[in-house]
Amino acid sequence: MKELALIADIQKRAGKMSKGVKLGIGDDCAVLDHDKTSYLLWAADMLIDGTHFRVGKDPYNKIGRKAVAVNISDIAAMGGLPKYIIVSIGVPKNMNLAAIRAIYSGIFGICKEYGIKVVGGDTNRSGKLVIDVSVLGRVGKKLLVTRSGAKEKELILITGPVRNGKKEHLTFDQRLQESKFLTGRYKVTSMIDTSDGIAMDIGRICRESNTGCRLYAAAMPLSKGLTLEDALYYGESFELLFTMRDNEAHRLLRGMNASGYSVIGEITHKRKGLRLIDRAGRSSVLSTEGYRHLGER
Amino acid sequence: MKELALIADIQKRAGKMSKGVKLGIGDDCAVLDHDKTSYLLWAADMLIDGTHFRVGKDPYNKIGRKAVAVNISDIAAMGGLPKYIIVSIGVPKNMNLAAIRAIYSGIFGICKEYGIKVVGGDTNRSGKLVIDVSVLGRVGKKLLVTRSGAKEKELILITGPVRNGKKEHLTFDQRLQESKFLTGRYKVTSMIDTSDGIAMDIGRICRESNTGCRLYAAAMPLSKGLTLEDALYYGESFELLFTMRDNEAHRLLRGMNASGYSVIGEITHKRKGLRLIDRAGRSSVLSTEGYRHLGER
Repeated sequence: MKELALIADIQKRAGKMSKGVKLGIGDDCAVLDHDKTSYLLWAADMLIDGTHFRVGKDPYNKIGRKAVAVNISDIAAMGGLPKYIIVSIGVPKNMNLAAIRAIYSGIFGICKEYGIKVVGGDTNRSGKLVIDVSVLGRVGKKLLVTRSGAKEKELILITGPVRNGKKEHLTFDQRLQESKFLTGRYKVTSMIDTSDGIAMDIGRICRESNTGCRLYAAAMPLSKGLTLEDALYYGESFELLFTMRDNEAHRLLRGMNASGYSVIGEITHKRKGLRLIDRAGRSSVLSTEGYRHLGER
Repeated sequence: MKELALIADIQKRAGKMSKGVKLGIGDDCAVLDHDKTSYLLWAADMLIDGTHFRVGKDPYNKIGRKAVAVNISDIAAMGGLPKYIIVSIGVPKNMNLAAIRAIYSGIFGICKEYGIKVVGGDTNRSGKLVIDVSVLGRVGKKLLVTRSGAKEKELILITGPVRNGKKEHLTFDQRLQESKFLTGRYKVTSMIDTSDGIAMDIGRICRESNTGCRLYAAAMPLSKGLTLEDALYYGESFELLFTMRDNEAHRLLRGMNASGYSVIGEITHKRKGLRLIDRAGRSSVLSTEGYRHLGER
């Protein structure tokens, strides 16, 4: 992992804020000035054969739809709406033409569903298939939610139930509706999409918000067959993980659309660290190792 | 080439214009509505080990600077200014850490020179090094130059002299100053950067403008040791290739800063096709095969 850690370290030096930049490296999207009432949201996600997918099986869903969906998820995590994408692709010589068609059907299909326009592309020769989608979206200034707004005593919630990313990451929903519902009607203090597992992602909220947290194993809404460990440490489930003041959370859970949301913990003082409370009430350190993609061994 | 041709064909279906999109796929950048006086410019360029560079030699210039420079060139070709980039990278396990540092020094170095901010990054594990930079810029509505504005009888000009992309593509200048100078003071009717060789790139202007052209071999400003064939068919020299009405071109060439510009041909009626006039005055078809990157054989 030392190469990836080095790059993360280097990128941090780019800094977060400057003129025209509300938020740079360190959140799901970059947040740029746009007009009086809205910001631009901008992100990119690269998928690589052997790391994020294996070529061959279901390119429509596992490559085409997924390449766009992970970007929609980044925009949703900040309370915004995706508008445009650019698709950069590296294609092996002699790649199955039907697979290429399926990938693009997946891309155009999900874009049509979400009202996203494909406005650019860069096409290259590559040894292995690689696809990098860059997304531009917009968010009302009042609706923007970052990773850094969580405060002590607030509750941690998740859209759910948490599914098995190992098996189901091809059919995931991008949670755009939930994001719109949540940010439009409630005060969400911080939010992230669980692309790397709940533990690592709550760790990011706590780091950016300068807090600790306590997660309750018993409260975790797991889909059938999913273990707690998978939910905590395996990513690609693309739920929204977010924080709210307790009265706001209770208002949400009393509402009409409450069935999709669960309280799974609370934000604590930074000195308490990150803790996991098991079903017997025992507290232990919550490791933030997170999900390792296929290629990271 | 059939895989790349297929993708180009699929992407064309995305269409060029729609609400909020002044120009989609088919130019150096996508052009998006921004405010009353300016557009957003947005592009992405992917560089892949084995196709666009070989890891090992001069990563600072050949990977880091180059990954940003090709994007600056895209923005310059439309008359705009680059503002922000996002860097997606796929890194092999056990890659030389000094090389990674050099790549990022190159990225941050050129960004500092051009006042560009790094606002995001996506870091992944990959078999071979791949780097995809996405750039956002801005252009005044009156300064926007596309590929589609050339008209019969206009002259074709190039910033120059055309250098040897095979040997020199590590030291290229992104022509941002020239772009600003040209679009600020003259009426440029169409423009492109010569990333794939002059023949292929003038072919793109003619296709988008629905015209033919005539290039003069004798007028091509070649740097020492560069053959005409290299200038026409080998890319990566990153000059600006553009068209102007003849009186405007003469005004440019009479001016103080004329030394960097050469007239190399003229725009003709579409039915005349693309022609090359050799030093003996003989006319032949100008092939638009263009540059094949390292990996395309």
